[in-house]
Amino acid sequence: MEEGAPIVVLAGGVGAARFLRGLVAAVPGTEITVIGNTGDDLEVHGLHVSPDLDTVTYTLAGLADLERGWGLAGESWAVLGGLGRLGADTWFQLGDRDLATHLWRTEQLRRGRPLSAATAALAERLGLPVRLLPMTDQPVTTRVHTVDGRDLHIQEFFVRERCRPAIAHVEYQGIEAAGPGPGVLAALAAAAVVVLAPSNPIMSLGPILALPGVRAAVAAARRTVAISPIIAGKALKGPATAMMAAAGVAPTVVGIAQLYRDCVQALVLDEADAALSGAVASQGVRPVVTDTLMVDLAAATRLARVALEAAA
Amino acid sequence: MEEGAPIVVLAGGVGAARFLRGLVAAVPGTEITVIGNTGDDLEVHGLHVSPDLDTVTYTLAGLADLERGWGLAGESWAVLGGLGRLGADTWFQLGDRDLATHLWRTEQLRRGRPLSAATAALAERLGLPVRLLPMTDQPVTTRVHTVDGRDLHIQEFFVRERCRPAIAHVEYQGIEAAGPGPGVLAALAAAAVVVLAPSNPIMSLGPILALPGVRAAVAAARRTVAISPIIAGKALKGPATAMMAAAGVAPTVVGIAQLYRDCVQALVLDEADAALSGAVASQGVRPVVTDTLMVDLAAATRLARVALEAAA
Repeated sequence: MEEGAPIVVLAGGVGAARFLRGLVAAVPGTEITVIGNTGDDLEVHGLHVSPDLDTVTYTLAGLADLERGWGLAGESWAVLGGLGRLGADTWFQLGDRDLATHLWRTEQLRRGRPLSAATAALAERLGLPVRLLPMTDQPVTTRVHTVDGRDLHIQEFFVRERCRPAIAHVEYQGIEAAGPGPGVLAALAAAAVVVLAPSNPIMSLGPILALPGVRAAVAAARRTVAISPIIAGKALKGPATAMMAAAGVAPTVVGIAQLYRDCVQALVLDEADAALSGAVASQGVRPVVTDTLMVDLAAATRLARVALEAAA
Repeated sequence: MEEGAPIVVLAGGVGAARFLRGLVAAVPGTEITVIGNTGDDLEVHGLHVSPDLDTVTYTLAGLADLERGWGLAGESWAVLGGLGRLGADTWFQLGDRDLATHLWRTEQLRRGRPLSAATAALAERLGLPVRLLPMTDQPVTTRVHTVDGRDLHIQEFFVRERCRPAIAHVEYQGIEAAGPGPGVLAALAAAAVVVLAPSNPIMSLGPILALPGVRAAVAAARRTVAISPIIAGKALKGPATAMMAAAGVAPTVVGIAQLYRDCVQALVLDEADAALSGAVASQGVRPVVTDTLMVDLAAATRLARVALEAAA
């Protein structure tokens, strides 16, 4: 693809952040706009927490604990210990350094600044090498309705309940009243390539694509490519397959193709799923087979190059 | 004095907390009600901080850093470091364990719980051996108007400006609209002894006494004794003498007697000020001379016993 061509990535949390590390190694960060999921944002101890935005920011700013897979490197847990002693709920683990982010952002929001402005300010202060746009400035909350009748915040389902409850359906609460955040539609309209990161299609990219106008804008983009988060019928982490099954699609690369067929031209899938290439193609999506396991930065960089080539 | 007689102490921060440690060693904590100053409460990073209430709580719960003189023992500063990296103002030092208190309390207040209820819940969770009542549930803010025309929050004056600006006058903002907190007037009415702790009379006890009805209730108490925070014309810590001078009273034990003459019968003063006993007595306040330096718990306990005897 041409030099200086703007790339837009729709991103969830850990998987997307790993992919983005590779992308930033492959092309200049100034060309990259990330549209981040905010459907798993939550309030913890009165603070606004944006887990996916922070995972992207911390990872790309070189601050993340890559081994643990979330949060900041060199993190400590004194505040959480204190909250535990006070009898507060501490199932959502907030580190001390991470808390500084949430305190700072929450104060900005309380002063009336939109999330997009607070996110941009944090990105600048933490040294994020790409542009990061929250998918929306309005509250959208991904909720998991369980077979046993509970209505859980996605983080309650994911962290507190460890994805154990059987899923009836997933809801994007507030999505009809929400609009895409500032710059989101413009970035998609100007994109040379749109990439759907290897994130959970229901939990992470679903809320972004469900925002009014976003799915159509992705479909209208010149070139769009998705990277499958599913390898051999399994997600590396998290409840993607259970959510896909609950949504009535096969928990495979074919299901991924089915979910995205109206808005992507190509799907990058793992060699382990090469046998399903034909089924992907029959969904009208061009399969591109490669090693999608991002075991290190070199592997992520290679995957990013393959994705960009697949879009070309 | 008789056993089981309720004691009420009007208290500021560090000096009061030291005295209270001695008092708790001298009489059962169940007999003691502390009415704590909230005039120096402030919002820091969106959190409600009650410095004097917390100093009393941490000290009496055995959690305080007695050497540093404020905050918690074994404290760490990771969040403050993170906030500094984000460019936030960090002149008000908040430790990590301390932040747990402020997060917890702030969430309680946002849920509509009054400060008195949040304070009682914190006291119970942290193991405070006395009853601690905030002087009011309404916002009262002690502000320092400086000679050079600035209007500073008391903590800005005290911590950020290190008491350097020349004081024009001190204001208790919001005092007219505020009422004594739940239990305050009842505790004073039931008190066998009321003690004015060795705290700054303008900055720390001034706001409590200025609340509608409190000064009269203290004056109406059976026995009231004050302990001078001034020794040989100096306060151990803080701007008491400068504030007294700005209020037009001598920055000595005589000035203390003058400020309290309408509501105390006795004033405990240091041996260094024995020569001023006559001047104190001529204010209509009975002087009780002793060693008032609380160099350790034994000295504080002895001072507490002297104060109770002085009231008898």
